[in-house]
Amino acid sequence: MIADKLTKISKPIENELKQFSLLFRETMKTKVALVNLITSYILKQKGKKIRPTLVLLSAKIAGKVNERSYRGAILVELLHTATLVHDDVVDSSEERRGFPSINAVWKNKVAVLIGDYLLSRGLLLSVDNNDTDFLQVMTRTVKRMSEGELLQISKTRKLNIDEETYFRIISDKTASLLSTCCEIGALSAGDDLKIRNSLKNYGENLGIAFQIKDDILDFNGKNGFLGKPLGGDVKEKKITLPLIYALNKSDKAERKKIIHLIKNGKKKENLKKVVDIVNFSGGIEYAEKVANDYINRAKNELAIFPDSEIKKSLNDLLDFVVNRTK
Amino acid sequence: MIADKLTKISKPIENELKQFSLLFRETMKTKVALVNLITSYILKQKGKKIRPTLVLLSAKIAGKVNERSYRGAILVELLHTATLVHDDVVDSSEERRGFPSINAVWKNKVAVLIGDYLLSRGLLLSVDNNDTDFLQVMTRTVKRMSEGELLQISKTRKLNIDEETYFRIISDKTASLLSTCCEIGALSAGDDLKIRNSLKNYGENLGIAFQIKDDILDFNGKNGFLGKPLGGDVKEKKITLPLIYALNKSDKAERKKIIHLIKNGKKKENLKKVVDIVNFSGGIEYAEKVANDYINRAKNELAIFPDSEIKKSLNDLLDFVVNRTK
Repeated sequence: MIADKLTKISKPIENELKQFSLLFRETMKTKVALVNLITSYILKQKGKKIRPTLVLLSAKIAGKVNERSYRGAILVELLHTATLVHDDVVDSSEERRGFPSINAVWKNKVAVLIGDYLLSRGLLLSVDNNDTDFLQVMTRTVKRMSEGELLQISKTRKLNIDEETYFRIISDKTASLLSTCCEIGALSAGDDLKIRNSLKNYGENLGIAFQIKDDILDFNGKNGFLGKPLGGDVKEKKITLPLIYALNKSDKAERKKIIHLIKNGKKKENLKKVVDIVNFSGGIEYAEKVANDYINRAKNELAIFPDSEIKKSLNDLLDFVVNRTK
Repeated sequence: MIADKLTKISKPIENELKQFSLLFRETMKTKVALVNLITSYILKQKGKKIRPTLVLLSAKIAGKVNERSYRGAILVELLHTATLVHDDVVDSSEERRGFPSINAVWKNKVAVLIGDYLLSRGLLLSVDNNDTDFLQVMTRTVKRMSEGELLQISKTRKLNIDEETYFRIISDKTASLLSTCCEIGALSAGDDLKIRNSLKNYGENLGIAFQIKDDILDFNGKNGFLGKPLGGDVKEKKITLPLIYALNKSDKAERKKIIHLIKNGKKKENLKKVVDIVNFSGGIEYAEKVANDYINRAKNELAIFPDSEIKKSLNDLLDFVVNRTK
């Protein structure tokens, strides 16, 4: 279902995505057998390629997909893969895309190093080809992503997160890379600053809406094959927008009670209570409204482009983000 | 003792090192409180600053220490610190420089992210200042370091390492960064290709000798406050030069016996037997001879420079590397 919709969205760059996959595989190759074994394992898992898709769509709407666009797409996918591998160590996850995670198969040691390898491999591709502009945006993004995650961790320990901090976290840890994908696509196709900024902002707003929707699904998502179990964020003491809304609407006594439930969220019945409170508080509707605001901002950024198949895909991607149910 | 000798070696750049420390502290600052807390913790531990020392000595012998030299020194120290933080996760180490490690205090999750943060912070410093030449050498080095470690891991599992592979591993995982320090120092001071290559090769040979000496100390080092316990590498199934020599000198039956002892190296008496076999085989003397060859190669690289206080320091650093006893 998800795959179907994404295939439709990426139709106008179907051939370019095939070319990307070939080049991506090629770039990963090294002389170290263990590295090749692990990267083959990663390649078998076939991710959704949302980030390369964003690079290529952005390049095409900004002008034309060229060699630099492919290098940009490879760079973002390598960086994204590196962060996924490190994330699984960070969260002690045993699974990724239905396969055992790298840390589960080869232990943390190898997973940390493979992450570092993929990160440096990506940056090296830009260095070797003098894509200085890519390096400028990407290095800043890697820094923002780690800062965002660290800010989230420090806040989950204290349970004192407000809306402003929430938006800073999701902008840094999620939106920054999606924004960078669009910016790199634009940069690869030309030097029009207006186009670059519009696509960059499109990606940023898309990313924020995407993360809010992800956080909403933690409270009302459908438990499917790939769906997250309800209340998973609460269990990890991650306070997201729907819950922040519920907390803000509560009086002092209710707040205290909710905080107590979160602190004891390892018990299933406590988790369920928090999920119910959030659903009852109107926190879902509020967060959906906010996500829609960001979707509209992203749509407005596309106004500078004439109608086209590519523009339709970029708009469809926005609808896809808010309408998914898992 | 070690600190005394290093202080003497770094005397000609005493003021520059002080300036470096101020700038290094400044560069680490961010808006995320948890990151500042952890970087302050790292700064309190006062490492030996061998890598910034190499950058600054190289810059001075190649011309003059300038703003770019300081940025280079900060870049290498940030990268080195990042790899130490990741190494401690990788090895589940509980201690670093007499302090509890980052992963011990803040868990693996935070340690992986802080490593990523420090890595990107370093690269961003170069990106923001258009130090493209630094980026070129440094990104390649980060890639080599992770590949070297991964090659070592894959070899420790199979216990089939030969001399050629050993040198490839230590060149990638250890010598590459020391070589890069010297190269970056040279680059910061001017564009003389002969000077750049001499210093780069000096660092590479220094690094290889340093690692061989480190590996020798695993078999004959003094167990001091900071000394490694004897046989620690063998216990982790790391086959290093003295042991490779002992294995090569053995007949088939002896080899089989040694491999059996290594495989069962968790038992103290087996470890001790391997250490004794290596000492008896002449593997130590052989490895010392090889280390000295690399030291001499490094000395020869300095021949292009006229005698000076700085040149003496670079030579003294070589003597320090081979003469240390822990």
